[in-house]
Amino acid sequence: MTFELHPQLDADTAEVTRLELCRVQLMDDTTWPWLILVPQIAGLKDLHDLAPGDDAVAMAEIRQASRALQALHRPDKINVAALGNQVPQLHIHIIARHVGDPAWPGPVWGAAARQPYDRDARDAALVSMRQALTNAAT
Amino acid sequence: MTFELHPQLDADTAEVTRLELCRVQLMDDTTWPWLILVPQIAGLKDLHDLAPGDDAVAMAEIRQASRALQALHRPDKINVAALGNQVPQLHIHIIARHVGDPAWPGPVWGAAARQPYDRDARDAALVSMRQALTNAAT
Repeated sequence: MTFELHPQLDADTAEVTRLELCRVQLMDDTTWPWLILVPQIAGLKDLHDLAPGDDAVAMAEIRQASRALQALHRPDKINVAALGNQVPQLHIHIIARHVGDPAWPGPVWGAAARQPYDRDARDAALVSMRQALTNAAT
Repeated sequence: MTFELHPQLDADTAEVTRLELCRVQLMDDTTWPWLILVPQIAGLKDLHDLAPGDDAVAMAEIRQASRALQALHRPDKINVAALGNQVPQLHIHIIARHVGDPAWPGPVWGAAARQPYDRDARDAALVSMRQALTNAAT
């Protein structure tokens, strides 16, 4: 089985970069700075499906993505979640939250209709996110 | 600074056991089988505040808790999340989800009023969860 990004994730996100384990996608929603990490291994569903070793890499990449969001957006809180009730392919949300944002203090899922980036803004966000991820690599 | 469980977590949960890194709490809500892992280190807020090494232990304990829930409740999906918008102390939700449960396929937070266990049911749940965690240790 070859890894392929789930069509729903593909439709809702844009590729930022590919790390050792995870593909890093930017959620196409201007309301929140929101990354999705997708381990590039076919057939994973739950976080604990990651093999030992891969889970350590996942944790390092969660850290890297969190630090990139922190450097770019100075959030009050980072939300990290592997839910997957709607899209069964294992994916990890990493979301920069600010006090007073449209869902604060609740979770973001289902809280507001997705507001897609316009093309220039999305391209700019991808460029700055790539740089921030590089800076956050340890 | 000494670790103390946040008063809100203390009020909403009951202690199952203490693992190497995390205290394992049962959410006092019969609607979902729901564990909360709290790393017993003072001052942590975000998941990436865990020191390298501790994050690997956290991942192993997430796996252990997920497998315990899976053995006891045969869920369709395990949700794992570190949100912390309301309670700033780092804590990791691990929730057994079933297709058609009261929040499915949405997230559980805020979806339904908490339905506390009665005392006997809670004690029985704690006993069976302790045994399942022991069985799930690797």
